[in-house]
Amino acid sequence: MSTRDHWPRRVRIVEVGPRDGLQNEAATIPTAAKVRFIELLADAGLADIEATSFVSPRAVPQLADGEAVLAALRRRAGLRYTALVPNARGLERALRARVQGVALFTAATDAFAERNIRMSVAESLAAFSPLATDAHAAGLWVRGYLSVCFGCPYSGAVAPTTVLDVARRFLDLGIDELALADTIGVATPGQVQAVAGLVREHIGTATLALHCHDTRGTALANVLAAFDVGVTTFDASAAGLGGCPFAPGASGNLATEDLLYMLDGMGVETGVQLDGVAAASRYLLGVLGRPPASRYLQAGRWDRGAAAVVTNASGQAKG
Amino acid sequence: MSTRDHWPRRVRIVEVGPRDGLQNEAATIPTAAKVRFIELLADAGLADIEATSFVSPRAVPQLADGEAVLAALRRRAGLRYTALVPNARGLERALRARVQGVALFTAATDAFAERNIRMSVAESLAAFSPLATDAHAAGLWVRGYLSVCFGCPYSGAVAPTTVLDVARRFLDLGIDELALADTIGVATPGQVQAVAGLVREHIGTATLALHCHDTRGTALANVLAAFDVGVTTFDASAAGLGGCPFAPGASGNLATEDLLYMLDGMGVETGVQLDGVAAASRYLLGVLGRPPASRYLQAGRWDRGAAAVVTNASGQAKG
Repeated sequence: MSTRDHWPRRVRIVEVGPRDGLQNEAATIPTAAKVRFIELLADAGLADIEATSFVSPRAVPQLADGEAVLAALRRRAGLRYTALVPNARGLERALRARVQGVALFTAATDAFAERNIRMSVAESLAAFSPLATDAHAAGLWVRGYLSVCFGCPYSGAVAPTTVLDVARRFLDLGIDELALADTIGVATPGQVQAVAGLVREHIGTATLALHCHDTRGTALANVLAAFDVGVTTFDASAAGLGGCPFAPGASGNLATEDLLYMLDGMGVETGVQLDGVAAASRYLLGVLGRPPASRYLQAGRWDRGAAAVVTNASGQAKG
Repeated sequence: MSTRDHWPRRVRIVEVGPRDGLQNEAATIPTAAKVRFIELLADAGLADIEATSFVSPRAVPQLADGEAVLAALRRRAGLRYTALVPNARGLERALRARVQGVALFTAATDAFAERNIRMSVAESLAAFSPLATDAHAAGLWVRGYLSVCFGCPYSGAVAPTTVLDVARRFLDLGIDELALADTIGVATPGQVQAVAGLVREHIGTATLALHCHDTRGTALANVLAAFDVGVTTFDASAAGLGGCPFAPGASGNLATEDLLYMLDGMGVETGVQLDGVAAASRYLLGVLGRPPASRYLQAGRWDRGAAAVVTNASGQAKG
């Protein structure tokens, strides 16, 4: 049974909002605002932050200032800033920007890979092989993203064995962490256990992470289900921003606040302060001029202490 | 572990949208539209539908046409229409309207009961005792709602033992089903297991149901957690409408579509057709002139079959 005894004591959260969230924004966000947002996330205790990507500025203009963002960020002990890199040019930029890690990305299906990165899965893995080697040689930590592990907007259902096959070839590159992504937010708990359970048997010394989207409200249930197959690393995006510009139907990464609200309630340690993340999200939402995107911020603060405090996103009491 | 083997084969869904959802609507909804909505829900296979309430029309004007709604509904074998009743006058109206069941309601805390029904918990249970007796004498099924079992907007945290104490006194009235309600949507999985697990030990021959709000995105995780303490009956509201007019911070019952999306994905039988519920929700949202409220309708249909079909709420392809 999935009772307290079977849940992990501690969960590691990988914050992807500054990259996966901001890459989709239509408005131009000042570099200084991105830096402030990321520093607030670090202040909240997040220790793995995907700060930007070094893809082509033409493809993702919103993150064209990756070098400037990373140059401005104060480095802290125990905090890893990573950047998404698609190719040798991206890795070169990331190295010069003094990241601690890089993330490579392909998909579980050729249909998605071809639309997203204009390569087949096999071609992408072949292209990544020297990148992983070079990144490791430079002392960087290497993460691999595997998109559409639970359903593809172009080719439909994805068999767990298909995910396993690509996952094993990705792991063969020597990556340190593999993130199984529910890119369009269609996964349900049994499927998470089937896919993550299968991959975990072959994960070796790497870490297995789950990257949920809350598109259909199943993200936290999927996290709970993943606990039971030993997954303890989860991606989340402050304020719930994000989605994928190449994935129709995708919307809303699992919000860091929402994940923390559940984990805090379960007594699972994360080392991250919910109030601090909420402050970072409110800051960014103020810059973007939009209402809260996470369920937690929409609902208002709930104090589990003796006196109820129910407030809305701007901190005013609603009672 | 909470794997497939430990999940129930079948789950019973209690549809509360026509009562718990519609009671909060500001717009006047024509009686014929309510009837059509409910008939569509019944067409979808829902077998337990809370159709209206017989509270004072001054307190809840939106449901003042309860008699007319129930008079127009076609009765079907195996389908139970229930109505919420607060007092002897309400029960009398419900009996004349030929319901198959009634629902009584109090709270886990005096602070909430006093604001919601203007009685202490003890006073409400004393007042309900003859109602339960009379309802049973008339051959009706009797459900009891227990509000704010996981947190109260007026008195804060609620101890599991407090819930148990009120639950036992409620069960002593001989009710057939007890629904533990997360009225303001603050529950997390460990808390659900603690509270529902404790009450279940004393449930006797009655059924234990869980009434989730998805205010903070935890509803489906809470359903999953509840499976592990043997709960197999869940309330849900088509289109995710609802909340509680007396509960600050409350918003959004768990949407029936969202619950079904997860259960269908897990292979858990419900006897309810997701497409049919989505059709009922779309019909009602059209009457209300508002965008989809459930995550499923917001996200668009996802076909688990071989060919991906991702459409938006109006059924148009987004890809």
